[in-house]
Amino acid sequence: LRTGDPEVIYAAGKTPEQVTAIAARLHEAHPEHPVLVSRAEDAHRAALREAFGGLCVDDPIARMVSVGPPPRPQGGRVTVVCAGTSDLPVATEAAFTARVCGADVNQVTDVGVAGIHRLLAARDTLAAADCLVVVAGMDGALPSAVGGLVGVPIIAVPTSVGYGAAFGGLAALLTMLNSCAPGVTVVNIDNGFGAGLAAARIVRGRKENR
Amino acid sequence: LRTGDPEVIYAAGKTPEQVTAIAARLHEAHPEHPVLVSRAEDAHRAALREAFGGLCVDDPIARMVSVGPPPRPQGGRVTVVCAGTSDLPVATEAAFTARVCGADVNQVTDVGVAGIHRLLAARDTLAAADCLVVVAGMDGALPSAVGGLVGVPIIAVPTSVGYGAAFGGLAALLTMLNSCAPGVTVVNIDNGFGAGLAAARIVRGRKENR
Amino acid sequence: LRTGDPEVIYAAGKTPEQVTAIAARLHEAHPEHPVLVSRAEDAHRAALREAFGGLCVDDPIARMVSVGPPPRPQGGRVTVVCAGTSDLPVATEAAFTARVCGADVNQVTDVGVAGIHRLLAARDTLAAADCLVVVAGMDGALPSAVGGLVGVPIIAVPTSVGYGAAFGGLAALLTMLNSCAPGVTVVNIDNGFGAGLAAARIVRGRKENR
Amino acid sequence: LRTGDPEVIYAAGKTPEQVTAIAARLHEAHPEHPVLVSRAEDAHRAALREAFGGLCVDDPIARMVSVGPPPRPQGGRVTVVCAGTSDLPVATEAAFTARVCGADVNQVTDVGVAGIHRLLAARDTLAAADCLVVVAGMDGALPSAVGGLVGVPIIAVPTSVGYGAAFGGLAALLTMLNSCAPGVTVVNIDNGFGAGLAAARIVRGRKENR
Amino acid sequence: LRTGDPEVIYAAGKTPEQVTAIAARLHEAHPEHPVLVSRAEDAHRAALREAFGGLCVDDPIARMVSVGPPPRPQGGRVTVVCAGTSDLPVATEAAFTARVCGADVNQVTDVGVAGIHRLLAARDTLAAADCLVVVAGMDGALPSAVGGLVGVPIIAVPTSVGYGAAFGGLAALLTMLNSCAPGVTVVNIDNGFGAGLAAARIVRGRKENR
Amino acid sequence: LRTGDPEVIYAAGKTPEQVTAIAARLHEAHPEHPVLVSRAEDAHRAALREAFGGLCVDDPIARMVSVGPPPRPQGGRVTVVCAGTSDLPVATEAAFTARVCGADVNQVTDVGVAGIHRLLAARDTLAAADCLVVVAGMDGALPSAVGGLVGVPIIAVPTSVGYGAAFGGLAALLTMLNSCAPGVTVVNIDNGFGAGLAAARIVRGRKENR
Amino acid sequence: LRTGDPEVIYAAGKTPEQVTAIAARLHEAHPEHPVLVSRAEDAHRAALREAFGGLCVDDPIARMVSVGPPPRPQGGRVTVVCAGTSDLPVATEAAFTARVCGADVNQVTDVGVAGIHRLLAARDTLAAADCLVVVAGMDGALPSAVGGLVGVPIIAVPTSVGYGAAFGGLAALLTMLNSCAPGVTVVNIDNGFGAGLAAARIVRGRKENR
Amino acid sequence: LRTGDPEVIYAAGKTPEQVTAIAARLHEAHPEHPVLVSRAEDAHRAALREAFGGLCVDDPIARMVSVGPPPRPQGGRVTVVCAGTSDLPVATEAAFTARVCGADVNQVTDVGVAGIHRLLAARDTLAAADCLVVVAGMDGALPSAVGGLVGVPIIAVPTSVGYGAAFGGLAALLTMLNSCAPGVTVVNIDNGFGAGLAAARIVRGRKENR
Ligand SMILES: Nc1ncnc2c1ncn2[C@@H]1O[C@H](COP(=O)(O)O)[C@@H](O)[C@H]1O
Ligand SMILES: Nc1ncnc2c1ncn2[C@@H]1O[C@H](COP(=O)(O)O)[C@@H](O)[C@H]1O
Ligand SMILES: Nc1ncnc2c1ncn2[C@@H]1O[C@H](COP(=O)(O)O)[C@@H](O)[C@H]1O
Ligand SMILES: Nc1ncnc2c1ncn2[C@@H]1O[C@H](COP(=O)(O)O)[C@@H](O)[C@H]1O
Ligand SMILES: [Mg+2]
Ligand SMILES: [Mg+2]
Ligand SMILES: [Mg+2]
Ligand SMILES: [Mg+2]
Ligand SMILES: [Mg+2]
Ligand SMILES: [Mg+2]
Ligand SMILES: [Mg+2]
Ligand SMILES: [Mg+2]
Repeated sequence: LRTGDPEVIYAAGKTPEQVTAIAARLHEAHPEHPVLVSRAEDAHRAALREAFGGLCVDDPIARMVSVGPPPRPQGGRVTVVCAGTSDLPVATEAAFTARVCGADVNQVTDVGVAGIHRLLAARDTLAAADCLVVVAGMDGALPSAVGGLVGVPIIAVPTSVGYGAAFGGLAALLTMLNSCAPGVTVVNIDNGFGAGLAAARIVRGRKENR
Repeated sequence: LRTGDPEVIYAAGKTPEQVTAIAARLHEAHPEHPVLVSRAEDAHRAALREAFGGLCVDDPIARMVSVGPPPRPQGGRVTVVCAGTSDLPVATEAAFTARVCGADVNQVTDVGVAGIHRLLAARDTLAAADCLVVVAGMDGALPSAVGGLVGVPIIAVPTSVGYGAAFGGLAALLTMLNSCAPGVTVVNIDNGFGAGLAAARIVRGRKENR
Repeated sequence: LRTGDPEVIYAAGKTPEQVTAIAARLHEAHPEHPVLVSRAEDAHRAALREAFGGLCVDDPIARMVSVGPPPRPQGGRVTVVCAGTSDLPVATEAAFTARVCGADVNQVTDVGVAGIHRLLAARDTLAAADCLVVVAGMDGALPSAVGGLVGVPIIAVPTSVGYGAAFGGLAALLTMLNSCAPGVTVVNIDNGFGAGLAAARIVRGRKENR
Repeated sequence: LRTGDPEVIYAAGKTPEQVTAIAARLHEAHPEHPVLVSRAEDAHRAALREAFGGLCVDDPIARMVSVGPPPRPQGGRVTVVCAGTSDLPVATEAAFTARVCGADVNQVTDVGVAGIHRLLAARDTLAAADCLVVVAGMDGALPSAVGGLVGVPIIAVPTSVGYGAAFGGLAALLTMLNSCAPGVTVVNIDNGFGAGLAAARIVRGRKENR
Repeated sequence: LRTGDPEVIYAAGKTPEQVTAIAARLHEAHPEHPVLVSRAEDAHRAALREAFGGLCVDDPIARMVSVGPPPRPQGGRVTVVCAGTSDLPVATEAAFTARVCGADVNQVTDVGVAGIHRLLAARDTLAAADCLVVVAGMDGALPSAVGGLVGVPIIAVPTSVGYGAAFGGLAALLTMLNSCAPGVTVVNIDNGFGAGLAAARIVRGRKENR
Repeated sequence: LRTGDPEVIYAAGKTPEQVTAIAARLHEAHPEHPVLVSRAEDAHRAALREAFGGLCVDDPIARMVSVGPPPRPQGGRVTVVCAGTSDLPVATEAAFTARVCGADVNQVTDVGVAGIHRLLAARDTLAAADCLVVVAGMDGALPSAVGGLVGVPIIAVPTSVGYGAAFGGLAALLTMLNSCAPGVTVVNIDNGFGAGLAAARIVRGRKENR
Repeated sequence: LRTGDPEVIYAAGKTPEQVTAIAARLHEAHPEHPVLVSRAEDAHRAALREAFGGLCVDDPIARMVSVGPPPRPQGGRVTVVCAGTSDLPVATEAAFTARVCGADVNQVTDVGVAGIHRLLAARDTLAAADCLVVVAGMDGALPSAVGGLVGVPIIAVPTSVGYGAAFGGLAALLTMLNSCAPGVTVVNIDNGFGAGLAAARIVRGRKENR
Repeated sequence: LRTGDPEVIYAAGKTPEQVTAIAARLHEAHPEHPVLVSRAEDAHRAALREAFGGLCVDDPIARMVSVGPPPRPQGGRVTVVCAGTSDLPVATEAAFTARVCGADVNQVTDVGVAGIHRLLAARDTLAAADCLVVVAGMDGALPSAVGGLVGVPIIAVPTSVGYGAAFGGLAALLTMLNSCAPGVTVVNIDNGFGAGLAAARIVRGRKENR
């Protein structure tokens, strides 16, 4: 177990019983660390609550459960940004993960490229973060616009939101990989978990600096 | 010949002699209309100047020649926007074409997504156009940002500028097709000609409206 | 709110309750403007009718609802063209959108590339428009054929109709981006909404010109 | 050796010496049949003329040489159709091949989708063929339009002419595979040879029928 | 109506009522010609039988109905070849279509590339055809092997049978387009209809020749 | 100018004169900050040395020039890792960039997935970094292996090294986006510059922490 | 029937009745050889057990049934390696197939690239095999890491496990095709059957060597 | 150094001096083992001969040099199969590599899918091998046909020979991955080296078995 990262169970393609059994094994080995379950459907979450009761912190939007509470925030600030409802599941997955990994997390929702004034209004919040996670589907242009405003490390998360030539998130992924803005790195389509974990690593031990 | 559109010769893959011969034939048929030559290399342009002398209007950045001068601008205003040097050949191709098609054309260079304040500063110029042509390579995010600022029809032109996962302009093309901003339509990669012609059609007969 | 464009809610991936709540908020802010809901399933449309009653204009083929009636047509003429039943939902989405955006809209159905005489018979109708929206799936060849007949701005809409190497509309999209006919610009696959809005912007203020 | 098909040497990637040696071997084996060399550069053609002298029939546009004259046309009529200069090398390759395979061949050049009246004017010529080979690059829409006019078998040949989202002929290939017109079959990009040979097989023994 | 081709209704995406109504209209216009319905689900077929009774010729494997009997075979012989059960629906669609278009049709099932001796055993049957339709999924290699055995025109039909890197028929499609065997032309993935119609056109008027 | 990031000129596609002129303008505006030139060919580097003399720090492997010396390292440690000669240009571009951006940089060369013991031997060096940049072509597997060994933020850089199904770096890019190891984020193919800049931002202000 | 390879029925897309009938025919022809059924759903397996009773060896994880017991292992050792639960169905399909083809098979589960020490701990087991089958999804990096440890022939099997830019196994497939480790060959995505059969062929007659 | 595999230097992208220096270092470390250089241009080969003189075994078709002679064949028989001239460089790379890795190698040239009788004539030679390497471009169908004839392990090598929809070897690669024939595994496009090395591993220690 690397310091600060929780153990993670990817629930997609596993039965509730399998997930609960793995969680029990991991929890017993290190009861002091939260065990994180991602892509948890209702049935997974119900089984986990049944098995671990009050130990569970459950976030239905993020489709995540933490068996064992997240640590008190010790790291720097991670700010998770997205344009709205459609991208919220992925953005919330990133936020929940970063929190369980020890970061101090906040979310900015409802800023998009097509409404640049809301983005400008959020500029101070964005600049105050130690690491930004920027989530966007369709054209995936939001990280480029955010990157033009602040000098903070940015992790861009393309989502599969969109249709037609969005090709399940490929359009947003390519946009982000080709971002004209400096300082942008990218994770897999819909990978809020990976972005949240990487962001938490980046801000680990940052709090004292600010 | 449809009113307002010039005859066009696509010089790529043709010899200077072929281009000059076709231009001569078209010019003789309608000496009162300009004949437009696109993707003209130095050799094409030299051959055309040799053949038509002062009749030629030659733009080496746009790689275009007009045999016969562009008409006096009769239509509305087309504004061609791009972020800088790399996209200038395509942007200038669009501007030159729109001018030969009768539009009143101006260019805004050096506004990009990663420098949003220059974009905001250009807002009034952009809003004053009857049609915008927005040219961008790499992430292709510029039309989304411009589209968030104005209510004008926007023709987006992806360019092949970039490397790696830009895939020769595919990334920018997909970004533009998926633009979150309303009112954006798209042409082929590097197709400044097509954008300029479509923009000129859109503003044709607009001048009197303003 | 930019003059003439309505607020739009993309219902896909939202619950009827979410859609109705957003629509209520937008309608209250600007009761004089229609709020447009796209990709509305039966349940969305039922919820909207329940919430807004006679305020709703509902088009089940376009899968759209306008909360608040479309304005009286003030702009020029948009003509929406397609080959038949399969493309009608997308074509009707474009027509409904353009109407809600203030355009004077008519539709030509049942002209296709494989039946060129019907296309020629419709030529005068096509030429009379201020902007054409041409919708096609499979080979996506219709805009090229229409573009050979008229000098009007053309917005081409590829649809996901087809199978096999149609690749969900990719074949039609590429055809349209490479159209030999001048004046064609393109929107995302199945994006009737985007085409209708762009067309309405193009013809805005055109009526008096004709 | 199947009746009617010549032996063929694909010269690309072979030295003039290799091509000449293979041609000599094949010619000696069956001096009564022509040996066809495709994708022959100037050096290949010069070496073949040097080796076989008056036996060579050489077509620089098709980049082909026939060692030994084509047979007198015994089959039905193959008509090869394209829009102009750019597609001529591929169209001529098809025509030359069909001729060497025994077909009675003619070519229609300068009909395109964007100029539908020239296409209509050629209708009788097209309908008189026993098999059509239709060659097109860019949007590849020509076979769909031709297919709407006649009831003849059509072999569509996409070419690599175009740029950007033409993707080296992929756009035209997909258009043709998805053609709305019935009776269209397709060969590889730029494969004039394959189209010509298949057309000649189709019309073999047709002459007497007409 | 072009001589010999039936009117066709593509049932996918249409309701049984829509299909029946279109079929009724077409049948009334030309009661002497069969109307062909493709991609007909059970419900479509039931509705057609209800509406047209004994007029229907129904093939559940081909998922096709002919309203009105196929004509007596007047053309040459079309032989439809495939490797077995998985490709039978597409192969049978081709065979049924060719029959309704007037061809004399037979089918060879259970020859595949991986069992070359069965293929060799079928050689005389294959060589006796005026046109072969060869249907294959997965590696799509069958037309290449057949093409090495006979000098007959071959229409290759890739199917979507396979998984993984078969990419829904793309692998078979590319194989066929690149076939080393001469005389092979290709139709869209799973397009048995298109292959059958093209084959019937090829053999039309052939019978008397044999 | 955001604190710590230099101005950058991407030399590819620009003439030596253009690059020198832009560098002069930027240097004059902020003589205290280095100006970074990337993808600089020999001619670009010669022109810059001619223009700025001793002000230039020139790295021919990285194909980079810094006009004005890099700052004394103030940030944390960035370690750049790759497997050998082929990936060195990209790895060195990342290292040079991070240095100019103020990081304390070292490089580990010659560790690869196919020689896991060298990788294990380097483990302490890797774990001592505040941020790792891992560069790999072909299978792009190195970041996954490194990520299994340390808990440090990792920026993965795919390179275009490889052939065939490497598809110009696409294979490595996809590998990295799908890395099983947590904490990996990715930049564009061959984008050593972007990785170096993002890494420098991550370690900025880190030195005092260690 | 080639020595050692069983007859195989691919159940996907076939009814239980079809599968049972084919199995009966094959079993009757060669009752001494097992008949292998792959991709067998519950219904297929139930039908086979009903038809063949105790003759069936049924593996629900591999989704396979052998009608007739596997032979006593006569060949060398095949070791099947994967990282865990998600890849187990494909890995078990490979193991079951190799066993039915006569190999001596064992499985190593729970070694992954991101946990390199478990991989090193398994090194002796891996090196003792005559052929390794290495199964991995997502980044597909496991065969590269295994290939760096042993000198045994390796068959790599990409799986469709993953999401987003895993593109249904394409990412893992490309990784494996580009593996830096020597001695790796690759089969289709999820093709445990093909890998198991090829491995069994490789180790056939090996036992006596060890 | 794993028993039997030589050290390999991939010369592409390296200077002759770099290649010679690496070869010298590897040769000095293990003078008893050959050092293999792949993708060696004329200049690389000249520099190696200059440096190592009679120690070099040089194969210009394979573009390979062995510094130090290949071992006496100790393993089983590897037979390398291809259709002709275009695929010979890759086939010879495989053969040369297998030989340097200790295999007993022979080559069968000039068997192709489109000439199935030559393939049948070679059947005994193919069946006598312990491992087949089958090299093919264009449609890549040859391994499927060979796989239908013999029960030997087959390594399929797609080549980049072809044009248009061959997509640089992608078509052949996909064909081979989807081969209907059992026992086929695949390497990267043009990777004769990888196929030869894997084949040599497979037949290592086989000789005594035959
Ligand atoms: N939402 C997620 N997206 C991507 N990877 C994840 C996600 N959740 C967990 N993982 C990774 O999946 C692995 C756990 O997979 P498993 O052992 O199948 O539960 C760990 O290595 C995690 O880093
Ligand atoms: N730069 C350009 N990009 C795309 N199409 C063009 C361009 N220039 C000319 N064209 C089109 O190419 C056609 C002229 O081609 P050609 O007859 O080969 O000269 C016309 O239909 C033009 O619309
Ligand atoms: N199975 C099929 N595959 C491809 N095209 C078909 C098929 N069946 C009918 N068509 C074509 O689809 C068109 C009829 O479409 P629709 O008017 O929507 O019924 C005709 O032009 C036919 O050529
Ligand atoms: N022709 C080739 N194709 C693919 N990989 C090769 C080839 N030749 C050598 N290699 C691999 O490339 C690596 C050597 O690369 P390098 O260290 O850059 O010389 C070794 O791991 C070889 O396995
Ligand atoms: Mg966005
Ligand atoms: Mg941009
Ligand atoms: Mg159409
Ligand atoms: Mg065309
Ligand atoms: Mg097959
Ligand atoms: Mg690597
Ligand atoms: Mg793995
Ligand atoms: Mg082949």
